[in-house]
Amino acid sequence: MTARFITLEGGEGVGKTTQLHALAEALRARGLPVVTTREPGGSEGAEAIRRLLLEGEEERWSARAEALLFAAARTAHVDQTIRPALERGEWVLCDRFLDSSLAYQGGAGGLGVDEVRSINLFGIGGCLPDRTLLLVHPEGSERARLRDGDEGSDRIGRRPATYHEAVERTFLERAAGEPRRIRIIDAAGTPAEVTARLMAALEDLL
Amino acid sequence: MTARFITLEGGEGVGKTTQLHALAEALRARGLPVVTTREPGGSEGAEAIRRLLLEGEEERWSARAEALLFAAARTAHVDQTIRPALERGEWVLCDRFLDSSLAYQGGAGGLGVDEVRSINLFGIGGCLPDRTLLLVHPEGSERARLRDGDEGSDRIGRRPATYHEAVERTFLERAAGEPRRIRIIDAAGTPAEVTARLMAALEDLL
Repeated sequence: MTARFITLEGGEGVGKTTQLHALAEALRARGLPVVTTREPGGSEGAEAIRRLLLEGEEERWSARAEALLFAAARTAHVDQTIRPALERGEWVLCDRFLDSSLAYQGGAGGLGVDEVRSINLFGIGGCLPDRTLLLVHPEGSERARLRDGDEGSDRIGRRPATYHEAVERTFLERAAGEPRRIRIIDAAGTPAEVTARLMAALEDLL
Repeated sequence: MTARFITLEGGEGVGKTTQLHALAEALRARGLPVVTTREPGGSEGAEAIRRLLLEGEEERWSARAEALLFAAARTAHVDQTIRPALERGEWVLCDRFLDSSLAYQGGAGGLGVDEVRSINLFGIGGCLPDRTLLLVHPEGSERARLRDGDEGSDRIGRRPATYHEAVERTFLERAAGEPRRIRIIDAAGTPAEVTARLMAALEDLL
């Protein structure tokens, strides 16, 4: 059984965190060893960077400084948590990863997807997901604005609707460009229905 | 009078910090407004990243995570301190800047000068020094190992002699490749003698 690296992506409030844990349970029920983790954060060093990113005023970091901090946190996360787990033969389920940086900083933030990908690949090298599950709610970012306290909120979650719409648009463009890796998952319905769709999108890897 | 961005570079223990302040006084004596700053750090955001970089165990950050953190700190430093001072018409004297990352992480750390330059240019764009003064002591890195408590010591200063020799070698290669911007300054002699050499290397910019 090969260890697999699976990421969950999507905008604010789409239910990634809940689904991550449900998916982990479903995979464990198949007898697979599973590690769950999240970004930004997911290791001691990355959590320290996460605190820098999410605290403070909107103006504390420019878009470019923020993108470099996310890339540094991701590198520490890969070094300290993801790569060691994969080397032990465990599945890794990660709440947000590279595609979030491409959507938030590259697309919505206007830094350019290619430039943001480049600084990230400097850090993480070839440690890329085997499959990315993109959760998309039919009501889209409208729904996100009605929620708060969700993952990624605070400094970034508070940004305007146009920003979150650009995030969603970039996620969808990326999925169109990499249909084999990135699978679009309908996030509407009961949690159990969504989990079943996620499992179906991993069936060929099991 | 044009504002100028001047950086001081060199290995550990070569007297950069002392000379930075002496050079600032010499320029002020000519009636120029001067801001002195340093890396890593030099602004609120960059100082927070500096603490992450210099604290903790040698293994806390991989070479690539470290290089991304330095690039993020430098970006915040440019955003919050250097570019605003230049826009006010002030000279900026900075203790370490981009060339330190190229020498420490790119050359000595083995990440490659071009790759490290690329992640830094992502952050700082066109905010590059008008002149870089590279302090080189004739006894080289041998002398550095006899000192401690100098700028940049702790996590990085404690690395082995071969590392610091590679730092010095990369600095010299860079100076050879950019002789107009980077001037090699003999750091031997009295502090006043060294300051006079630094001023002479800025004469065409005054």
